[in-house]
Amino acid sequence: MDISTIIGFICGIVFVITSIMMGGRLGLFFDLPSVMITIGGTFASVLISYPLNKFLNSLKSARLVFKTQEFDTGNIIQKIIDLANIARKEGLLALEEAAQSMEDKFLQKGILLIVDGTDPELVRNILETELAFVEGRHKEVQGFWETVASLGPAWGMIGTLIGLINMLDQLNDPSSIGPSMAVALVTTFYGSVLANFISTPIANKLKIRSSEEVLLKEVMIEGLLSIQAGENPRIIEEKLKAFLSPTLRDTVNEKDEGEAKAGE
Amino acid sequence: MDISTIIGFICGIVFVITSIMMGGRLGLFFDLPSVMITIGGTFASVLISYPLNKFLNSLKSARLVFKTQEFDTGNIIQKIIDLANIARKEGLLALEEAAQSMEDKFLQKGILLIVDGTDPELVRNILETELAFVEGRHKEVQGFWETVASLGPAWGMIGTLIGLINMLDQLNDPSSIGPSMAVALVTTFYGSVLANFISTPIANKLKIRSSEEVLLKEVMIEGLLSIQAGENPRIIEEKLKAFLSPTLRDTVNEKDEGEAKAGE
Amino acid sequence: MDISTIIGFICGIVFVITSIMMGGRLGLFFDLPSVMITIGGTFASVLISYPLNKFLNSLKSARLVFKTQEFDTGNIIQKIIDLANIARKEGLLALEEAAQSMEDKFLQKGILLIVDGTDPELVRNILETELAFVEGRHKEVQGFWETVASLGPAWGMIGTLIGLINMLDQLNDPSSIGPSMAVALVTTFYGSVLANFISTPIANKLKIRSSEEVLLKEVMIEGLLSIQAGENPRIIEEKLKAFLSPTLRDTVNEKDEGEAKAGE
Amino acid sequence: MDISTIIGFICGIVFVITSIMMGGRLGLFFDLPSVMITIGGTFASVLISYPLNKFLNSLKSARLVFKTQEFDTGNIIQKIIDLANIARKEGLLALEEAAQSMEDKFLQKGILLIVDGTDPELVRNILETELAFVEGRHKEVQGFWETVASLGPAWGMIGTLIGLINMLDQLNDPSSIGPSMAVALVTTFYGSVLANFISTPIANKLKIRSSEEVLLKEVMIEGLLSIQAGENPRIIEEKLKAFLSPTLRDTVNEKDEGEAKAGE
Amino acid sequence: MDISTIIGFICGIVFVITSIMMGGRLGLFFDLPSVMITIGGTFASVLISYPLNKFLNSLKSARLVFKTQEFDTGNIIQKIIDLANIARKEGLLALEEAAQSMEDKFLQKGILLIVDGTDPELVRNILETELAFVEGRHKEVQGFWETVASLGPAWGMIGTLIGLINMLDQLNDPSSIGPSMAVALVTTFYGSVLANFISTPIANKLKIRSSEEVLLKEVMIEGLLSIQAGENPRIIEEKLKAFLSPTLRDTVNEKDEGEAKAGE
Repeated sequence: MDISTIIGFICGIVFVITSIMMGGRLGLFFDLPSVMITIGGTFASVLISYPLNKFLNSLKSARLVFKTQEFDTGNIIQKIIDLANIARKEGLLALEEAAQSMEDKFLQKGILLIVDGTDPELVRNILETELAFVEGRHKEVQGFWETVASLGPAWGMIGTLIGLINMLDQLNDPSSIGPSMAVALVTTFYGSVLANFISTPIANKLKIRSSEEVLLKEVMIEGLLSIQAGENPRIIEEKLKAFLSPTLRDTVNEKDEGEAKAGE
Repeated sequence: MDISTIIGFICGIVFVITSIMMGGRLGLFFDLPSVMITIGGTFASVLISYPLNKFLNSLKSARLVFKTQEFDTGNIIQKIIDLANIARKEGLLALEEAAQSMEDKFLQKGILLIVDGTDPELVRNILETELAFVEGRHKEVQGFWETVASLGPAWGMIGTLIGLINMLDQLNDPSSIGPSMAVALVTTFYGSVLANFISTPIANKLKIRSSEEVLLKEVMIEGLLSIQAGENPRIIEEKLKAFLSPTLRDTVNEKDEGEAKAGE
Repeated sequence: MDISTIIGFICGIVFVITSIMMGGRLGLFFDLPSVMITIGGTFASVLISYPLNKFLNSLKSARLVFKTQEFDTGNIIQKIIDLANIARKEGLLALEEAAQSMEDKFLQKGILLIVDGTDPELVRNILETELAFVEGRHKEVQGFWETVASLGPAWGMIGTLIGLINMLDQLNDPSSIGPSMAVALVTTFYGSVLANFISTPIANKLKIRSSEEVLLKEVMIEGLLSIQAGENPRIIEEKLKAFLSPTLRDTVNEKDEGEAKAGE
Repeated sequence: MDISTIIGFICGIVFVITSIMMGGRLGLFFDLPSVMITIGGTFASVLISYPLNKFLNSLKSARLVFKTQEFDTGNIIQKIIDLANIARKEGLLALEEAAQSMEDKFLQKGILLIVDGTDPELVRNILETELAFVEGRHKEVQGFWETVASLGPAWGMIGTLIGLINMLDQLNDPSSIGPSMAVALVTTFYGSVLANFISTPIANKLKIRSSEEVLLKEVMIEGLLSIQAGENPRIIEEKLKAFLSPTLRDTVNEKDEGEAKAGE
Repeated sequence: MDISTIIGFICGIVFVITSIMMGGRLGLFFDLPSVMITIGGTFASVLISYPLNKFLNSLKSARLVFKTQEFDTGNIIQKIIDLANIARKEGLLALEEAAQSMEDKFLQKGILLIVDGTDPELVRNILETELAFVEGRHKEVQGFWETVASLGPAWGMIGTLIGLINMLDQLNDPSSIGPSMAVALVTTFYGSVLANFISTPIANKLKIRSSEEVLLKEVMIEGLLSIQAGENPRIIEEKLKAFLSPTLRDTVNEKDEGEAKAGE
């Protein structure tokens, strides 16, 4: 579970509800016709924008925001150094066995390409193409939520315009102006909450997750090519640690103190 | 028929009409002078922006949004692998026959260039230039709809300003203020719907379609050059599958299980 | 004459005037002090933004929007293929004569550089530098109109603020509020029309014209270098036609059916 | 202490408080429920946007804005020239001792890589990767404050909408309209101050600091590689001074007048 | 003196003052507390954004906008061709004397590097690094004025919010509403004028000046390297003139008619 997402959602909901109840009644802010025009209208526009399968995939991607997805770069660097040591001592073919137990599909594929004796240029080419498309798919999902974030307030305004025009046309009863305008503004409120509390933050967190995953895969590509080139494990470690922040770097140091030296 | 476009348009229209009728009368929202200044003004500005032939072409492109346009990348990769097998067994010249029955003009052109013995650098040059211009023309059409999306609300506001100024000048009869303002706001409503329900979603879907087509053509170029270079069909498959998402990748695997092996 | 520009301007003016006259009197919208603060203020800011010669040049560039400027890429490609045929049969020096009758200065300059036996790298260097600066000057002019488009509404708002502040300060006579606000809003109306009906569409059309001219010059550079390299006219044709849209491509085919074959 | 940050914050606070007290009472602008919805809501959205550790790190980074962080590029260039002189006279290994007393970790690491006899290409690769990630982490923190700056006014508006809707629903007592609207607007005021007085300026200063640090590290990389290549200290000086503004350049000149000559 | 800047400022001030005086009294628009919150608040935020020395430098840079700064590219090209002739006839060392009388520091530095026999790659490296940093410093100053342009209206709105909230809280006296709102709006007026009449135009003109200076220095680098390579002055002229607009090109032609031929 991603703690910050959950704290964020709970706090936001509590703040909004408290804020409403301190000045009025909550029921005023639950208005089904307003939900229909704001949320319904937004998703109608988004449906025109995206093919059905991308629409559903992107909606489902919102789940990811609640799941913790630890990208333990330090751990992966350690694994790559271990592989480099194996390759140095027992030859590239010995990596095949190690690859079997790999959980990460990308790293596994890379090792198998190396074991197959694929040309280094082609290994880089295949892995970078795959990385580019992983990044592209991530961007598409972020784009979906950014589209929702820009269409939400627009449909909120369309709803408010409908309410206002209807109200202005029936100005006979002055006492009804206030409540009518209140209802008209609820769609603007929905649009604003949809954009700034839901879709923009989701797009933001997906973007950060994506950049972490891309960084991890870049480390893997760099490491795999170094292993294939038969570079010294110590140099590989030096190279890969440049990808880490100083704090993370120390965690690798601790772990591999014994092993890295043994591997030389 | 593109299902999501159609569901989107129908839902959107139903939501807007229901929303209007729940609070007032539909007639109020159909106002010919408002159509003239908002839609007419927008297209007047767009006409100044684009030459007549691009204006008409871009308008027509809206049709595409309703048509399904399946870019079956998996299928194309399969075809390229088949071609690679033919080229390996029977030589590059044997591809000429296969090219005759190709539906895709781009792939066909590429094969004919290879059969003609064109220099690989020139083949890449010609195909990439063509791809760049296909992409350029797509961008132009998307740009048209984005221009409409930015000018629509602007002309909606111009219409509302005209209505407001006229109303404010004739403030004699207080009872007419409401209805006059209602009418003045209808143009803002039109501009907002034009931008957020029609032109932005059309531009979005055209953009996604374009990126799918460009990806497909990139796969073709990569594949054609590999065939020309006489690469092993298995390696070509590996290379091209890096362009696919993991789910699509499996569909290729199933299809070519038998064939790919036979081709080695 | 550029038909779409003219239709656009006429339609826009008719729509605005009709829309005004349907709800009020036209005179209300012609207010000299409002013209002064909106148009005058905008051009005061633009004058600070640009040196005087660029200011005047950019203003004059608005004329181009009314002129048709056909960039007949198909025709130019045909001409380059003809030149390639001459060069092949009679040698590069024979191009000097053909260059004399060229209307296009850029193409002529390129041919003369080739005839002079200039180094191919230098020919590309000179022509691409020139193209880059042509594009740069176009961008500057488009930037001018985009500056007008962003400052216009801003000065419209400044005018409205002046009107509003003056009106609010003299709230003694309630009957004057309406007409005063009407006048105050006229500047916002001017700013909006200046931006969305005049300067943005002018900037847009200049941008499209520029991209067409740049494309044409890119075709020329590619063609000239191919001629200098002594490439086969048929291959040159294939290369240059990749720059065209499929429809334009056919027009070249028709024209050169006889000639191209003869040139081999 | 960074003087401009402190002057800026003090002046801004004084101006806002004076401005409030000149026209009303300060208490009106301190409203706990408004703080909750604006600041609370903003940070709820930001919490969903960022993982918890990045959220806390970025918040802490605000401290940096108060600290002076002199990037004395002139001084670093001087140090590099000194190192170049040592390397020339006593060999690369003599740099190890000098590296011990270095305060700057980045420079120290670079020297140690050189002393270890690492391949120049790899030295550049490692240092540039590290620099790219330093820059990436800076961008992330700036992005955090820009996110706050865009969500702050949005939540201010959500707060105002809640206040407005509640007020409009209870229009019975006309005398309460004014004060209710006043309170509703306080959240917009908070959002605007949060964005334009706090988060945008913080993001701006972090950006300038980052670009200064990146420049310094670029100078270091350039200098280290020149030392490794055994270039003449005078040429290294010439190369590195091109990174400085003319005024800073003179300060280097003064300092090294004697030394640089001695080093030749 | 830069005529367009001065005409622009005078016209703008005249238009604003005339516009104010036609509808009200000028005194209403001079309000010290409003100046304090808008201008003061803006500069408080800008002070937090920039270190003190950059803040002061950028403020001073506004002077440049009033000074004419002719970048006579045609003249510089002529000078470079003269230098090329000297170098051809009397050798590179003869340039040292010519460099003494150069006014332009950049050109002078370049010649001295050539005379010193510096490696061409290093000459390009040093001059391009210096150019990149000149451009960087220009961008920083433009960024300062763009920051002012974005913060000005924001603080104008903060001022108006303070005024509005205070006014709404004291709605007892209906006759005071108008004048109070008038005063509240004055800060929005200030913010808008600051952004659209002062800081945006200053940023624009600084940008154009910068691009002219950068172009000039690019011509110098290209010319210096050609001189060092011992290229024919006629070819150098051809190369450099590609950087000019057709009109400027003719002015060079006239001047060097005699000299260029003599130099061959």
